[in-house]
Amino acid sequence: MKFNKTYHLSNIAELIESEYFGDHSVKITGINEIHNVEKGDITFVDHHKYYNKALKSKASVIIINAKVDCPDGKALIFSDDPFATYNKLVQIFRRFSPSKSEISETVLIGNNTVIQPSAFIGRKVRIGENCIIHSSVSIYDHCVIGDNVIIHANSVIGADAYYFQKKDGEYRKMHSCGRVIIEDNVEIGALCSIDKGVSADTVIGRGTKLDNHVQIGHDTLIGKNCLLGSQVAIAGVSTIEDDVLIWAKVAINKDVTIGKAATILATSNVDKSLEGGKTYFGSPAIEARKKWKQIVKLNQFIKGL
Amino acid sequence: MKFNKTYHLSNIAELIESEYFGDHSVKITGINEIHNVEKGDITFVDHHKYYNKALKSKASVIIINAKVDCPDGKALIFSDDPFATYNKLVQIFRRFSPSKSEISETVLIGNNTVIQPSAFIGRKVRIGENCIIHSSVSIYDHCVIGDNVIIHANSVIGADAYYFQKKDGEYRKMHSCGRVIIEDNVEIGALCSIDKGVSADTVIGRGTKLDNHVQIGHDTLIGKNCLLGSQVAIAGVSTIEDDVLIWAKVAINKDVTIGKAATILATSNVDKSLEGGKTYFGSPAIEARKKWKQIVKLNQFIKGL
Amino acid sequence: MKFNKTYHLSNIAELIESEYFGDHSVKITGINEIHNVEKGDITFVDHHKYYNKALKSKASVIIINAKVDCPDGKALIFSDDPFATYNKLVQIFRRFSPSKSEISETVLIGNNTVIQPSAFIGRKVRIGENCIIHSSVSIYDHCVIGDNVIIHANSVIGADAYYFQKKDGEYRKMHSCGRVIIEDNVEIGALCSIDKGVSADTVIGRGTKLDNHVQIGHDTLIGKNCLLGSQVAIAGVSTIEDDVLIWAKVAINKDVTIGKAATILATSNVDKSLEGGKTYFGSPAIEARKKWKQIVKLNQFIKGL
Repeated sequence: MKFNKTYHLSNIAELIESEYFGDHSVKITGINEIHNVEKGDITFVDHHKYYNKALKSKASVIIINAKVDCPDGKALIFSDDPFATYNKLVQIFRRFSPSKSEISETVLIGNNTVIQPSAFIGRKVRIGENCIIHSSVSIYDHCVIGDNVIIHANSVIGADAYYFQKKDGEYRKMHSCGRVIIEDNVEIGALCSIDKGVSADTVIGRGTKLDNHVQIGHDTLIGKNCLLGSQVAIAGVSTIEDDVLIWAKVAINKDVTIGKAATILATSNVDKSLEGGKTYFGSPAIEARKKWKQIVKLNQFIKGL
Repeated sequence: MKFNKTYHLSNIAELIESEYFGDHSVKITGINEIHNVEKGDITFVDHHKYYNKALKSKASVIIINAKVDCPDGKALIFSDDPFATYNKLVQIFRRFSPSKSEISETVLIGNNTVIQPSAFIGRKVRIGENCIIHSSVSIYDHCVIGDNVIIHANSVIGADAYYFQKKDGEYRKMHSCGRVIIEDNVEIGALCSIDKGVSADTVIGRGTKLDNHVQIGHDTLIGKNCLLGSQVAIAGVSTIEDDVLIWAKVAINKDVTIGKAATILATSNVDKSLEGGKTYFGSPAIEARKKWKQIVKLNQFIKGL
Repeated sequence: MKFNKTYHLSNIAELIESEYFGDHSVKITGINEIHNVEKGDITFVDHHKYYNKALKSKASVIIINAKVDCPDGKALIFSDDPFATYNKLVQIFRRFSPSKSEISETVLIGNNTVIQPSAFIGRKVRIGENCIIHSSVSIYDHCVIGDNVIIHANSVIGADAYYFQKKDGEYRKMHSCGRVIIEDNVEIGALCSIDKGVSADTVIGRGTKLDNHVQIGHDTLIGKNCLLGSQVAIAGVSTIEDDVLIWAKVAINKDVTIGKAATILATSNVDKSLEGGKTYFGSPAIEARKKWKQIVKLNQFIKGL
């Protein structure tokens, strides 16, 4: 997330009551976990395996649990528990706060947009023109919806990322400060869930259409003019490029990329990235014509057993 | 959909500002896409592959993008873009219009029916006697619910068909004017979606019981006394006959028929029609006893590899 | 379910207008179906195959459709239709009754708990401290939620068990009188359903986290500190022990036990009980390292065909 203004290191350190080292003049403009950091960001690292990645990232400030040398032009904040310190910052800058009415006062809604009864629109949500938000849709705080968007009944936009860290046998919640961005001309079916990014944005590209019961994990990027069938589940931090067709009940793993204009046939399971322009099938999904040949061969073989 | 009154060809042509040919005296009583047309209907065709089917159908008026000869007793409306012209008609006769309250004024509700708080009942919905509509259920306009029906919380009845036409790289929405009909003694689990027909009705037959998270596509007909397990997905325009058992997580393709008293075991995927009275399993689903034999044989073979 | 007070056999028999035999002094403290009976309970049996099980159970009163000898210290209630008689009792003691507002008057809510707009909280629900119940969540009557629980938008807690009995070609509903218990520090994703027990409790153990679209069937017991991925479906009356990881789209059959600290990989289907401490994969799920070996061997073999 980006702040509304620029902070000095001393402001931030004071908020979280922490020591800091390095370049005191760094300008702090946002918070991001390591996958999405930009210059100006605070990030965190709590495992020596990732120290180098964090120290060499674009982040301006790194919350860290070791007294390492500070790279030039950056600052370090020391914490015994960087995860907790990062979460504390998230909760200071984007604390959940209750809404008093179904449509929060700080919402911006465009002309000709219809909000049906029982829909909930959280704080600081922006919705464009000519949209229909059907009954009992839930839109969490800070989400952004374009023009000509239809969201069918009971879908949930912007629920928290499913992201926990195990410590002493229990799971601690990573507090999300990202958003969901839904571009123009998107249609979302009934009972879909699109989780917000942990610190960045989950995006549904212009003109993409989702059937019912679709799940989109945190920080996933869906391209333009894609079709996603019923009960498709896409885990977090994946990229679906433009013009991809994903039929019903497909599962797609986290951290994969599906290339432009790929087609994934119904009930397939995708566990790794797939090149664009081809048709895939199976568990794990491979090129459909190969899979079909394999199935035919195997069935003939089984008959002979 | 059927109109409330009969229209003359000149009335309709005027509404959509179009030329017409053929029998000017045809009586127009409804709108239907080609799969469901009856005498009195207007339908459309925009691809030469389907011209013959449309011209020989029961439709009284065909919106078409070619100057073909008009069959006797019918009329033609010429349009460069029949899909758009048809959609325009749908939107004239069944335009979405916002609801001002959770229970629209034009709703008819029978004796002893309970509507729990936060449920939404759209315009012109009819609900019978002794029903329970639980909290945050969404029922779209024009749906019809019988007697003794229970709909559990957050289910969505009558969302739009998932039906788009690709044109110039983008998807155009086919506007739905059909309904959902839920017959007497049906129980619908929590978080189910039953889409309305594109122009006809999606039907859930008397006494059928759905578990949670079930998806029923547009224009699908479910028979009487069926059981559908959790997370079952049935695509559009399929027929499930009476007394069919479909266990959890089964996927059923569009345009298939499942015969009377068939049983489909959990997690199966059905890609073609299945005869009644038998038990099926697998992906693709075949007779379960055959599938089990195959699995045993194959497992023995793999052990020997 | 447990009654608020102790009843005499004569009170109960009068309510359901039935004959009774055996020890007239039995104290009646609850209703339970046969799987969960304790001393003091009324239960029922309607098939000779299960007579012995019911007569030897801990139940104090058995509703039965045969004139059998009454075991010492118990009583029998005769009924031509024990299922109907049992249901009648359930409906006397835990009749569904409509709620007049989104948050019923008889609800108990702890300090610092936030109920977002459009959430529905049924009669006699108890919710602990520091919880967030998001918009359009539906919590049915009598459910119990601990402290520090987050329930994301549009989830449904406590819908009726999916439990029907076939009679004369139609399905009769078993009326549920159980509850859902959600322990402290649980997080439930968006659009999840957790059904109430038929007569006992469905339990989500302390610290367990559910992703979106998860289905938990009636009377299922989920242990502490488990993770359940998106679109997981667990059927009724299963037991998931502590520290179990279940990844996305897994299906788990009814009446199975998953041992402590087992891991079940995404898209697996579990049809029988699995030992704890191991990792499983496939349909049906077996130990993952065995499954992977099989897949490698089989793929090599298919290539050679």
